[in-house]
Amino acid sequence: MIVSETADKIKRMEIRGAGRIARAAAEALRDNALSSRAATTESFRMEMTQAADTLLATRPTAVSLPNAVHMVMAGIKKAFTVEEAKAGIVTRADEFVTSSQHAVERIAAFGSRHIRDGDTIMTHCNSEVALACIIAAHREGKEIEVFATEVRPRNQGLITIKTLNDAGIKTNFIVDSAVRSFISDIDLVVVGADAVTVNGAVVNKIGTSQVAHAAVEARVNVMVAAETYKFAPRTILGELIKIEERAGSEVLPDEIAKTLPNVTVRNPAFDVTPAEYVDLIVTEKGAIPPQMAYVIIRDYLGWEIGEFGDPLSGTGGLNGS
Amino acid sequence: MIVSETADKIKRMEIRGAGRIARAAAEALRDNALSSRAATTESFRMEMTQAADTLLATRPTAVSLPNAVHMVMAGIKKAFTVEEAKAGIVTRADEFVTSSQHAVERIAAFGSRHIRDGDTIMTHCNSEVALACIIAAHREGKEIEVFATEVRPRNQGLITIKTLNDAGIKTNFIVDSAVRSFISDIDLVVVGADAVTVNGAVVNKIGTSQVAHAAVEARVNVMVAAETYKFAPRTILGELIKIEERAGSEVLPDEIAKTLPNVTVRNPAFDVTPAEYVDLIVTEKGAIPPQMAYVIIRDYLGWEIGEFGDPLSGTGGLNGS
Amino acid sequence: MIVSETADKIKRMEIRGAGRIARAAAEALRDNALSSRAATTESFRMEMTQAADTLLATRPTAVSLPNAVHMVMAGIKKAFTVEEAKAGIVTRADEFVTSSQHAVERIAAFGSRHIRDGDTIMTHCNSEVALACIIAAHREGKEIEVFATEVRPRNQGLITIKTLNDAGIKTNFIVDSAVRSFISDIDLVVVGADAVTVNGAVVNKIGTSQVAHAAVEARVNVMVAAETYKFAPRTILGELIKIEERAGSEVLPDEIAKTLPNVTVRNPAFDVTPAEYVDLIVTEKGAIPPQMAYVIIRDYLGWEIGEFGDPLSGTGGLNGS
Amino acid sequence: MIVSETADKIKRMEIRGAGRIARAAAEALRDNALSSRAATTESFRMEMTQAADTLLATRPTAVSLPNAVHMVMAGIKKAFTVEEAKAGIVTRADEFVTSSQHAVERIAAFGSRHIRDGDTIMTHCNSEVALACIIAAHREGKEIEVFATEVRPRNQGLITIKTLNDAGIKTNFIVDSAVRSFISDIDLVVVGADAVTVNGAVVNKIGTSQVAHAAVEARVNVMVAAETYKFAPRTILGELIKIEERAGSEVLPDEIAKTLPNVTVRNPAFDVTPAEYVDLIVTEKGAIPPQMAYVIIRDYLGWEIGEFGDPLSGTGGLNGS
Amino acid sequence: MIVSETADKIKRMEIRGAGRIARAAAEALRDNALSSRAATTESFRMEMTQAADTLLATRPTAVSLPNAVHMVMAGIKKAFTVEEAKAGIVTRADEFVTSSQHAVERIAAFGSRHIRDGDTIMTHCNSEVALACIIAAHREGKEIEVFATEVRPRNQGLITIKTLNDAGIKTNFIVDSAVRSFISDIDLVVVGADAVTVNGAVVNKIGTSQVAHAAVEARVNVMVAAETYKFAPRTILGELIKIEERAGSEVLPDEIAKTLPNVTVRNPAFDVTPAEYVDLIVTEKGAIPPQMAYVIIRDYLGWEIGEFGDPLSGTGGLNGS
Amino acid sequence: MIVSETADKIKRMEIRGAGRIARAAAEALRDNALSSRAATTESFRMEMTQAADTLLATRPTAVSLPNAVHMVMAGIKKAFTVEEAKAGIVTRADEFVTSSQHAVERIAAFGSRHIRDGDTIMTHCNSEVALACIIAAHREGKEIEVFATEVRPRNQGLITIKTLNDAGIKTNFIVDSAVRSFISDIDLVVVGADAVTVNGAVVNKIGTSQVAHAAVEARVNVMVAAETYKFAPRTILGELIKIEERAGSEVLPDEIAKTLPNVTVRNPAFDVTPAEYVDLIVTEKGAIPPQMAYVIIRDYLGWEIGEFGDPLSGTGGLNGS
Repeated sequence: MIVSETADKIKRMEIRGAGRIARAAAEALRDNALSSRAATTESFRMEMTQAADTLLATRPTAVSLPNAVHMVMAGIKKAFTVEEAKAGIVTRADEFVTSSQHAVERIAAFGSRHIRDGDTIMTHCNSEVALACIIAAHREGKEIEVFATEVRPRNQGLITIKTLNDAGIKTNFIVDSAVRSFISDIDLVVVGADAVTVNGAVVNKIGTSQVAHAAVEARVNVMVAAETYKFAPRTILGELIKIEERAGSEVLPDEIAKTLPNVTVRNPAFDVTPAEYVDLIVTEKGAIPPQMAYVIIRDYLGWEIGEFGDPLSGTGGLNGS
Repeated sequence: MIVSETADKIKRMEIRGAGRIARAAAEALRDNALSSRAATTESFRMEMTQAADTLLATRPTAVSLPNAVHMVMAGIKKAFTVEEAKAGIVTRADEFVTSSQHAVERIAAFGSRHIRDGDTIMTHCNSEVALACIIAAHREGKEIEVFATEVRPRNQGLITIKTLNDAGIKTNFIVDSAVRSFISDIDLVVVGADAVTVNGAVVNKIGTSQVAHAAVEARVNVMVAAETYKFAPRTILGELIKIEERAGSEVLPDEIAKTLPNVTVRNPAFDVTPAEYVDLIVTEKGAIPPQMAYVIIRDYLGWEIGEFGDPLSGTGGLNGS
Repeated sequence: MIVSETADKIKRMEIRGAGRIARAAAEALRDNALSSRAATTESFRMEMTQAADTLLATRPTAVSLPNAVHMVMAGIKKAFTVEEAKAGIVTRADEFVTSSQHAVERIAAFGSRHIRDGDTIMTHCNSEVALACIIAAHREGKEIEVFATEVRPRNQGLITIKTLNDAGIKTNFIVDSAVRSFISDIDLVVVGADAVTVNGAVVNKIGTSQVAHAAVEARVNVMVAAETYKFAPRTILGELIKIEERAGSEVLPDEIAKTLPNVTVRNPAFDVTPAEYVDLIVTEKGAIPPQMAYVIIRDYLGWEIGEFGDPLSGTGGLNGS
Repeated sequence: MIVSETADKIKRMEIRGAGRIARAAAEALRDNALSSRAATTESFRMEMTQAADTLLATRPTAVSLPNAVHMVMAGIKKAFTVEEAKAGIVTRADEFVTSSQHAVERIAAFGSRHIRDGDTIMTHCNSEVALACIIAAHREGKEIEVFATEVRPRNQGLITIKTLNDAGIKTNFIVDSAVRSFISDIDLVVVGADAVTVNGAVVNKIGTSQVAHAAVEARVNVMVAAETYKFAPRTILGELIKIEERAGSEVLPDEIAKTLPNVTVRNPAFDVTPAEYVDLIVTEKGAIPPQMAYVIIRDYLGWEIGEFGDPLSGTGGLNGS
Repeated sequence: MIVSETADKIKRMEIRGAGRIARAAAEALRDNALSSRAATTESFRMEMTQAADTLLATRPTAVSLPNAVHMVMAGIKKAFTVEEAKAGIVTRADEFVTSSQHAVERIAAFGSRHIRDGDTIMTHCNSEVALACIIAAHREGKEIEVFATEVRPRNQGLITIKTLNDAGIKTNFIVDSAVRSFISDIDLVVVGADAVTVNGAVVNKIGTSQVAHAAVEARVNVMVAAETYKFAPRTILGELIKIEERAGSEVLPDEIAKTLPNVTVRNPAFDVTPAEYVDLIVTEKGAIPPQMAYVIIRDYLGWEIGEFGDPLSGTGGLNGS
Repeated sequence: MIVSETADKIKRMEIRGAGRIARAAAEALRDNALSSRAATTESFRMEMTQAADTLLATRPTAVSLPNAVHMVMAGIKKAFTVEEAKAGIVTRADEFVTSSQHAVERIAAFGSRHIRDGDTIMTHCNSEVALACIIAAHREGKEIEVFATEVRPRNQGLITIKTLNDAGIKTNFIVDSAVRSFISDIDLVVVGADAVTVNGAVVNKIGTSQVAHAAVEARVNVMVAAETYKFAPRTILGELIKIEERAGSEVLPDEIAKTLPNVTVRNPAFDVTPAEYVDLIVTEKGAIPPQMAYVIIRDYLGWEIGEFGDPLSGTGGLNGS
């Protein structure tokens, strides 16, 4: 698939989900490299940079996308010939795709070890990796029980309880307000992440920080499951994760809203759980404390401070644009 | 209205709301006294006790009902003649009704003083007295703004925002999960109470304790508005407030629920906010710290430990039954 | 029994335990009154005051003793004749004895209501009233389980587990260091008290404050069971409860200690749990928050600030001595 | 001295200090009663009420003044004749003056018992009663050491260290910023109060809440010394204590301030220490936990909710004005 | 000594103590390499792997053993010839042994710098490195005092106080329950570690987490002394440290236990202190915050995520078995 | 400038400020290298080491100085010829100077991203980098407001408010005691650092830890701005940062002090803010959580544990002296 097609599909949300977007971008770069007719490394580099920029522009706030592009583009760095550069791109793209595909399984394998026989687990929202940990524990024969929240306003909790029900796991369904009421029955909180910042804060579905706060009050451990490409490199530069605020109609139907002129709906999609409320982040590279986010970004995602461009000139970004 | 009629209406929920139930019971006892043809104080006392028992049996877990009945019945205590006894009942019934009717206004007057010009307030659920405090502050010309929650599963938040909208107060509407996200913008939390226990814990709509917990974390004060008849006398005896668990179908439609055999809906209607998360309880007798609940029960509601019956014999209750 | 005999037995520890000492003193005062041949109220008052002083001198640091003596002696206050004064003493002595005897049963009845079916309870040391609450809950048919500590250095835990074992209650025995390890399995901590101060602090067997501290960290409630005569009136005067430090040989045999010249054994018998770590104190007058200690001392024990003597003159004490 | 003279002196700050103001008002009312030529109780009552209003108007935000006036005026309540009314006023005025004069001594006697031999104490600002506790402990022969703060912007700490120096007490002088640095060396914090609210919050010199906050972090007890007339009755009505903001020139000389047009000096004179940061308030009526403020206001200061006037009519205040 | 002999001695606990076991294993591998007659690197590698597996099997839950074996076996990695491989093993074995031997001294040198003249220190259990820090500080002429706990049920505190006594250090001996009572007198807590997990949690003798919890409450720093080979690499994989539960007879003699059929002794040997209760871990590689455990495991112990085998296949372990 | 001149100027405080000292030292080493006539690498190395020692001796407790010297001297390490060694020194000296000069700008660029439009910021003392972050945010058009403290005893707050005033930023000036009173109005605390220890503790102007403590209580984020050369490498060795105690006359004029023989002024210049009170440290290498200090010291400052010398021999220090 050529880059522009992939870019289109990402933009139109035909390709979605942090993992799928990242893998599609890596594959598009690989295909672009293979089909390039550039004669010099310089022109090859320019072609690839252009392709990378096209992909990055589709979702300016996504975290997995720049991580994928950066990882693949690093394959070009030390190449002396076009052939070496192509090979570098292809190798790293394949590596990224494989590693991303295995990431969920590995996280499930690592994370399920933190779930003990007899545990009651609470989860919030509908995270593939968080559920994978829980289901893996169940498959290992551990007798577990889950409390899952409703997750207003989009009710992702319904998908979660269907998945758990189908896996044969005893599940309890509660409204988001009932978290603190049941937290004393809980042994472990397991949630996913949309992004992890350089100081270990976890950006996830609105309400996650309340779950974690209640857990900490009751001395219940909080485990976050997250692929390494969820770690947000630009937070090293002090950049803040932008919390998307979605349409008010998700919460209050427009026909009611328009009868209430003094009322505004506020509908942030995510909240931020501080690092000190998280006991462990389980990645495919192992379980780490949240404060290790910087090392993940630098050592596994391979970002170096210099690569971000010069913050002083007002420019920046992956490709110096 | 004769006692059996009132009792019926309370049972069938034609009369509802803690205040209305309490006042109706007081009035029924007064009418019963006035129409009594008892010749001796002894027979009058028996008649009245029977009436009181009938009323108490309609809602065994309500808190305002035994408080009202107890207050009115105390009028009989020191009477030597039937006339005196009747007069005692009537006087105390009238007093209770008047005091109950004024309670909301007085609480609004006291509570609004804790709201300062420019304050942003958060409220949860739909409490008449809590809203009365907020609206009183607005009427005093203070510029205020409110954050109101959705209050799943029965969405009482919708009624709250309509009331606030109609009062002309700038209001924000958020899902219950977003409380902690906005708490840093809040200056004061104002909520009502279904019951207050002897150690100052506040029983209120599910989610209240999460709001209070988030407030405490961010050093935001929490004010509870509650008429004194919300204070639960039998908690002095170590009795626990029973937390009602309502039908699961409020949260998950039955047609979905039956497709999910491993899933149970848990739907507690209330939660318990510990006294240390509450800064002040505003009653019609003044503003008090939650630890003063015992004094309210003893000195204003007039309960004495002996009146509860002998806990050792297994009996107990207001009328020795 | 005449006063001097009772005083001797208390001194020689033939009579011991806070309750038994208090009741013996009350009875001695009653007997003294009945056998008095005083002709005037003045001389009767003098006789009785002397008897009271004799009793108080036997255990200068006990808390139950001055409470009992004060309660009985109050019977003399408003008497105009010797007969009235005698009757006052006798009535109040009988009342105190009966009330004290029933106190444990009443506390058990109140306290057991806080224990729910299925609860796991932790207790520390060997408190008659705390165990009475637990056993009452068990007798009411609630399925409960207990964790009891060893209670070094005198191993009172052994008595506790024997009592629980004989009552047929599933019990776990742990060293004092293991409290925090098991606290997540606990639903309620139940302990007794040696004294309760005016600001609600609980003086109890060394280690109690560690148990409460671990409980608070894990959001586990802490219930203290204590007869009202455990409340220490003189703490209103700012007087501190003296923490007894016992012989080092309880911890380290003297033959070892003498080989270790640089080592000192420190062996305080009690520690102080701050009021904010205690959710409820269950007395025979009902369950109260710890901050209500002042009201218990003033309204139930009947102490008034004036009665303590003039702190400025350096005198003080019950009888102005 | 006639009432108008006293009122003038209070207004012109010739009479100042919470205690002196309160006593002067009591004496003025007494003198006014003695010199009255009223023929009927009704006219006497009117004269006295007018005098009380004159005094109250001198310092509308003071706390000790309404307490004193209220206490004295209560002497008129149950009088049937002018003579009885006069006697009532005189008796209560004398009682108030004596009790107020002895209050500091009694508080010192109670409070010094909380200071142990070898203790290091921290104090903030210059409170007569707080220092009285410290000096009493020193006089009892306890070896103590004090850390005193500078107390910007008016440097009251200088007066404190002179007093302590003259008493022969080893004293350390530190800037306000150094409190947390030295808190680990401290055994007890002792401060005064300008006002105590119904929920036990302590209003005192700016910085007090920081000292208490640092103390709580390090598990150091905080003792507040305060005469009962410092307890603010109208906070029962939800009334907030107004925090006075003083001239910016106390902090920044005007000649500098005027060169800095973008700079505003904020200079609040007091701050509010929440009840949970205070272990004990020592009054002349005994040591109490802060949550007992309500009982002090009701039982010792003698305020009843009805006396405040009807909050609903917008009126209120001591004399219904 | 040949590998099987060493393995036997470790199994039979003739060789014991984390450090001694680790060094014996390293030496056995070195001897095995030197005596090998393998002709190819492949056969040498197989021989060595077999030896390593034999050693690892002796103590499946020890932490120092796999660390030592892993460090030595890394010497084989980049070897092209048998000679190079042998040299690699020998060099790394010698390095490990030397470094391990010096570790205690280096930790004492680093750790003693955190002990100031005049400090009072609390320690729990009997840790060689923790005591080395304390004794080093004493030898440097700092005047220090120590509180040591009894450490039930095996009373290791007795060994600790003997060591401290012999070193001439002023020591206090307390029961485990008295930790919180004395914590206000303490300036620094110093303990050892049995294992440190990837998120900085410290596994140590039961009761350690209670000491740390009390310290944190009173703002007392907690320093853990631990050689780097105490850091548990497999916790990166989400593996939990297994807490050994020892025989109940250590706590309660069997002859008593059998008379108490409803009583179970629970006797966990260790507990887990969370990272946020630890201020510093002092290793022979320097002092680090607990969150740095991951870096120690990766950069000093040299573990890489790939080396643990494939968690997905169910295999894993050092040698891919 | 020759080394001895620079050393003199640093000693005489003609050159001062952590950054300027560091750069001057780097330049002096560069000039020394360029003017060297050493014929062998060995003699060159000796010359340079001597120069380094001269510079280090000027300020034994500074943190930036050894960092600068160490960074430049590393240029000599792998040189085989004198020319290579000289080039190594020159290159690294130039790099250090440039990087140091740009550090403030980069930190301002990173840090200002954490300041949002509409934020109210609190700062304490007069930190160049902290103010640079604030001013950068203002220049980016964000509407911000600042609260600045007085900073007794040397009133550095005056310089701060002048700088902010001149930058056109709305500023509030408060005494140090008023921090907690205003913290609820604050969105972000921004301070500088004199040193950062290996476990992320921040050493800064006395009072900083109180500001951070108040911020944490109110859930306000704390951002520290610090160049990497502020990180203290020797804290890895367990070395404590020495807190300078300055002349008492800064706080209390000597003529007053001498009249108060029992009073001692305590005047520590700095305090220590624990890592858990700091959300982020912004360095020129990016924003990091405080726990990453170890990685900064090792990976950016380039210190290795071996370089500090052998702690066991009592020696140590940069040059093995």
